[in-house]
Amino acid sequence: VQKQHASSHETKLRAGIVGATGYTGQDICRLLASHPHISIDAVFSRQSEGAQVVDVSPHLTHISDLTYQVFNPASVSGLDVLFLAMPHGKSHAFMAELVGSNLKVVDLAADFRLSDPAVFKTYYGIDHQNIDLMGDFVLGFTELTRDALSTAQYCANPGCYATSVVLGLYPLSKAGKITSKVIIDAKSGVTGSGRSLKLGSLYCEANGNFSAYSTGRHRHQAEIAEVLGVSTFFSPHLSPMNRGILSSMYLDNPEGLSQTDVEDIYREVYKDEPFIQIFGESHNANTAQVAGSNNCAITIKVVDDKIAVFSAIDNLIKGSAGQAIQNLNVMCGFIETSGLEALALGL
Amino acid sequence: VQKQHASSHETKLRAGIVGATGYTGQDICRLLASHPHISIDAVFSRQSEGAQVVDVSPHLTHISDLTYQVFNPASVSGLDVLFLAMPHGKSHAFMAELVGSNLKVVDLAADFRLSDPAVFKTYYGIDHQNIDLMGDFVLGFTELTRDALSTAQYCANPGCYATSVVLGLYPLSKAGKITSKVIIDAKSGVTGSGRSLKLGSLYCEANGNFSAYSTGRHRHQAEIAEVLGVSTFFSPHLSPMNRGILSSMYLDNPEGLSQTDVEDIYREVYKDEPFIQIFGESHNANTAQVAGSNNCAITIKVVDDKIAVFSAIDNLIKGSAGQAIQNLNVMCGFIETSGLEALALGL
Amino acid sequence: VQKQHASSHETKLRAGIVGATGYTGQDICRLLASHPHISIDAVFSRQSEGAQVVDVSPHLTHISDLTYQVFNPASVSGLDVLFLAMPHGKSHAFMAELVGSNLKVVDLAADFRLSDPAVFKTYYGIDHQNIDLMGDFVLGFTELTRDALSTAQYCANPGCYATSVVLGLYPLSKAGKITSKVIIDAKSGVTGSGRSLKLGSLYCEANGNFSAYSTGRHRHQAEIAEVLGVSTFFSPHLSPMNRGILSSMYLDNPEGLSQTDVEDIYREVYKDEPFIQIFGESHNANTAQVAGSNNCAITIKVVDDKIAVFSAIDNLIKGSAGQAIQNLNVMCGFIETSGLEALALGL
Amino acid sequence: VQKQHASSHETKLRAGIVGATGYTGQDICRLLASHPHISIDAVFSRQSEGAQVVDVSPHLTHISDLTYQVFNPASVSGLDVLFLAMPHGKSHAFMAELVGSNLKVVDLAADFRLSDPAVFKTYYGIDHQNIDLMGDFVLGFTELTRDALSTAQYCANPGCYATSVVLGLYPLSKAGKITSKVIIDAKSGVTGSGRSLKLGSLYCEANGNFSAYSTGRHRHQAEIAEVLGVSTFFSPHLSPMNRGILSSMYLDNPEGLSQTDVEDIYREVYKDEPFIQIFGESHNANTAQVAGSNNCAITIKVVDDKIAVFSAIDNLIKGSAGQAIQNLNVMCGFIETSGLEALALGL
Repeated sequence: VQKQHASSHETKLRAGIVGATGYTGQDICRLLASHPHISIDAVFSRQSEGAQVVDVSPHLTHISDLTYQVFNPASVSGLDVLFLAMPHGKSHAFMAELVGSNLKVVDLAADFRLSDPAVFKTYYGIDHQNIDLMGDFVLGFTELTRDALSTAQYCANPGCYATSVVLGLYPLSKAGKITSKVIIDAKSGVTGSGRSLKLGSLYCEANGNFSAYSTGRHRHQAEIAEVLGVSTFFSPHLSPMNRGILSSMYLDNPEGLSQTDVEDIYREVYKDEPFIQIFGESHNANTAQVAGSNNCAITIKVVDDKIAVFSAIDNLIKGSAGQAIQNLNVMCGFIETSGLEALALGL
Repeated sequence: VQKQHASSHETKLRAGIVGATGYTGQDICRLLASHPHISIDAVFSRQSEGAQVVDVSPHLTHISDLTYQVFNPASVSGLDVLFLAMPHGKSHAFMAELVGSNLKVVDLAADFRLSDPAVFKTYYGIDHQNIDLMGDFVLGFTELTRDALSTAQYCANPGCYATSVVLGLYPLSKAGKITSKVIIDAKSGVTGSGRSLKLGSLYCEANGNFSAYSTGRHRHQAEIAEVLGVSTFFSPHLSPMNRGILSSMYLDNPEGLSQTDVEDIYREVYKDEPFIQIFGESHNANTAQVAGSNNCAITIKVVDDKIAVFSAIDNLIKGSAGQAIQNLNVMCGFIETSGLEALALGL
Repeated sequence: VQKQHASSHETKLRAGIVGATGYTGQDICRLLASHPHISIDAVFSRQSEGAQVVDVSPHLTHISDLTYQVFNPASVSGLDVLFLAMPHGKSHAFMAELVGSNLKVVDLAADFRLSDPAVFKTYYGIDHQNIDLMGDFVLGFTELTRDALSTAQYCANPGCYATSVVLGLYPLSKAGKITSKVIIDAKSGVTGSGRSLKLGSLYCEANGNFSAYSTGRHRHQAEIAEVLGVSTFFSPHLSPMNRGILSSMYLDNPEGLSQTDVEDIYREVYKDEPFIQIFGESHNANTAQVAGSNNCAITIKVVDDKIAVFSAIDNLIKGSAGQAIQNLNVMCGFIETSGLEALALGL
Repeated sequence: VQKQHASSHETKLRAGIVGATGYTGQDICRLLASHPHISIDAVFSRQSEGAQVVDVSPHLTHISDLTYQVFNPASVSGLDVLFLAMPHGKSHAFMAELVGSNLKVVDLAADFRLSDPAVFKTYYGIDHQNIDLMGDFVLGFTELTRDALSTAQYCANPGCYATSVVLGLYPLSKAGKITSKVIIDAKSGVTGSGRSLKLGSLYCEANGNFSAYSTGRHRHQAEIAEVLGVSTFFSPHLSPMNRGILSSMYLDNPEGLSQTDVEDIYREVYKDEPFIQIFGESHNANTAQVAGSNNCAITIKVVDDKIAVFSAIDNLIKGSAGQAIQNLNVMCGFIETSGLEALALGL
């Protein structure tokens, strides 16, 4: 079925994508087209059951002829890897049924991101049904948790906002320079709201419109705290654009670190990272320079008694589908950039 | 020449607009079309000299036949009011030549906004050439400086960002509740960059792109400090949309004020203001609800130990052309909403 | 309830708007804010029943406190005029119940636009339930049917595409210069798809996307034929913008009419029209110059053996809500531009 | 300098890109990052001379460290292939100086697209300075001129509009089914206007704006006539989006060809083409499905007595940079899809 790479099909891992018609699921399918070691063998979508990919996502020309199936845990037979790109609160109910095989799973929803069932209930409003499995998932902020991922079978892929924030704060956090609450003002493109039919996601509602939402209450705060252990005030906003997150973060600077001091901390921590670019005062990290790529662009500005950090990613790629593949690459021992070499479109 | 209101022309004040082809100048012309007491008698533009309005701004059908002239101080003969919508650093050089008549002037540039020539030089890089006149201009945050405006001949119209921030912080400032530095993360539409030809203002550069700029260094900080006397860290951003500013402001809440406490402070201060809407937790103030109007929508959110204030305006109207007319209305004793009744388009 | 015009409430006609939360309904409410002779007394919306206007359409500050009711024919008691901004196929079922009073009705749906029940069934797929009433509605292309409207009680407001096309072709049609099939390539902003939740109306689906739809099969063809009696091939497209239609029309020019010949025909026919602007080769009529206004901008280009006509309107105003008010103004004997003086925003 | 492919550098062809900071030049650089047989050795830009790529195009991370040089004909020493992405009217003046080596050249400007110097002068207003060389360039509509390209040293890459139109009409033209003038209504994203600073290219001018331009007078008409020999009326428009062209083409159908007849003609002609997708009535070809890819999506609709053909491409890729690489692949004997495998982003 998968046309372009048919000749080497036998040697590739066979992947299934659940939720393949959502924005994240589509991007997993798209990125895997250039992956040297993974083929797409099954696409699952409840609402598009029986349709062909060409009818729903005509840009996915490499899998035009595949037919969407309804997923159930038995569907994984014959698959080597599974991407779960479903809404939050689904996988914790069936994940136990997948245990016992060699199937590698990357769950892009929040079900297994948090270690504390009580925190999960606070943020998601439901009782976790697979508390025993929570510890078996590695939280996949690749740059931070690479070692644990290298031996993991299951990965909980982080939220898009959380990824932009964690990459933006990690060097200062690691260096012990975050001593008070960080103000985070984050801006996301509309794909962040998903492909479901909501009034606020309509073109004419979102176009030309800028607003905050969920101020101080967003679920990704929990993931940030889980991995960094720092205190944040998180304020997300919706920006009229398809892709991209820019997180603007403001920290106190009690030690009086200089611009160079802070840049040096970042450059040292990220010096071998293929997907992270560090900028100083001469360039403002922006969403256009990363959209379409798995990159994260970070700008540091030390001004007066504050440190400002700006972190830009493509929310669907480094913030979701791309990091999921990056995590799987680590889990499988592949070159970490496999399938993720695409540059940003630029415009 | 001015078609629609010809019959009552004799009784109207005669206005000239300098810089009439810029985004702000265009909007002054547009708004004055519905003003009951002001007619447009002259439009000035150096680069469009000799062209007719219909050729440059075909939507300004009420003044289609007017011809752009080059402005010089002698041009004001016969005019009653003058709007200066020029770049910063122009009017301080010729303003002295306009003194001595009854001409009322609203300067939309920064030349006379600040009271201290040293601060002016710090932010604008030039020596002020009319220090004596600085004190004759009233800084026109209408809701704050209405009394002074009512007897003023000259008005310095504030910056767009400054207007959104000052309206958003004034009630807490007045109540003495701002005790530490306020973090301000502001987002502006691209009209904020003006109509001059800059790479970053091109459609394809700005579309889908979100970035910060001038972090901690923007000139409007000086105006905010001038009128509120509070300390801020100001971080502006460019958002892919034509009109609108949303300023997100984050304050410490050492007294533990409740949501109701803070809302009450705002509702009391602004209870008689025709252009200000206050919202609580149920609605996020956004740019779409104000774009096209002179309104300012403010949302208060008290969360944990922080107070978040979101203030939305149309940068070209309440942030510029609209407030200029509002200020002139006060200066002339007109009903303050004259010419400013238009609702936001909504979308 | 209606704040701004309370003092003169007694002398105004009392209006109800059915479907007041749709894009067209919202714009009727918005435009009526500046109407000197009509007040808004009732807003009807099934899905927003019980909500206040401020909660659904916060930009409609003049009617913030009104509450949406569910419409039924008995609701019209006490109203003088009724705007029906409902989906197609609703009003023909209940319209008979409204007959017998002095209530003036402008129906913005298609139910009473066509004179032939068979054509109605062809295009809308249902049997018309009020064939007797079809003849009582005047099809409200104001510039063409003004005389009939002046004595009408009921008006069928035309479709948005049909309005742009009919205004663009009427002078040539009237002059007998259309002798073969006209190719019409029309482009509409996304508000043309309405406010209902459809995948294609999502921001991320429509943004950056341009496509044709309903080629040669669109319902508005029937209205064009009804009023002009010319043969057209109508090809609509969706353009990534909120408001606006540009219809590009291509005609044979067997008589070899010159640019001046054709411009003269248009200028003569429309010389007294307040809402129509005619341009020649020097300016391309565009959607930005009309969006927010009730204007129609038309450009003529005679090239080689073809005549090209470009007609731009705001689909929600001249294409819907604005023309509805214009029609009602004629029906009521008001000045035709009442409530419609707003200029286009320009950008 | 070129980081990613350093190890295989010796075996790759060495490419130079002239005009590397324009939209087309940027996209050539971007696409070559994944080309297995070509490395980027030199980037030329007059206005960015001395700057590094990271400062101008930070998304081109594979060549971040390259420095822009000013191009002159001597600069080609050591290069194997040269892409000329300059404004029209430059290369015809210096091209003769490049003759005599093995350097392969793809010129993306119009200088060598036309075979008749008189037609060149009519459309470009200048006398051609290298008439002798005109015949040495193969016009690179790859799907039509593949054989000639396979032995060519010089390629004139077609215009973006021309590419969308020629691919859309070629099967009917080849089958002799085009017997009268074709009406072509084309819509382009704003990158089509290039990266130079023009008022109409500003974000706020283009956003929400739709208009025609150059009706019946556009230069690409000449290229269409050159290769297809059919008569067209070409009417281009500017659409508010970055990338993409949709050309809507309307033809008479005197033979009464059915939907199936026409689809069959297209499917037969394009059955082995890797970059062309044919759709019938069930899907409307659109710009989102091709943007970011080298694909062309074509939809056929036969309605009444007309045939409508809709052809969608990414104007910067299949319409420019991508087809340039595709042409070079043919000229070099590489697999034709090399460097062009990227799928459309989808959104």
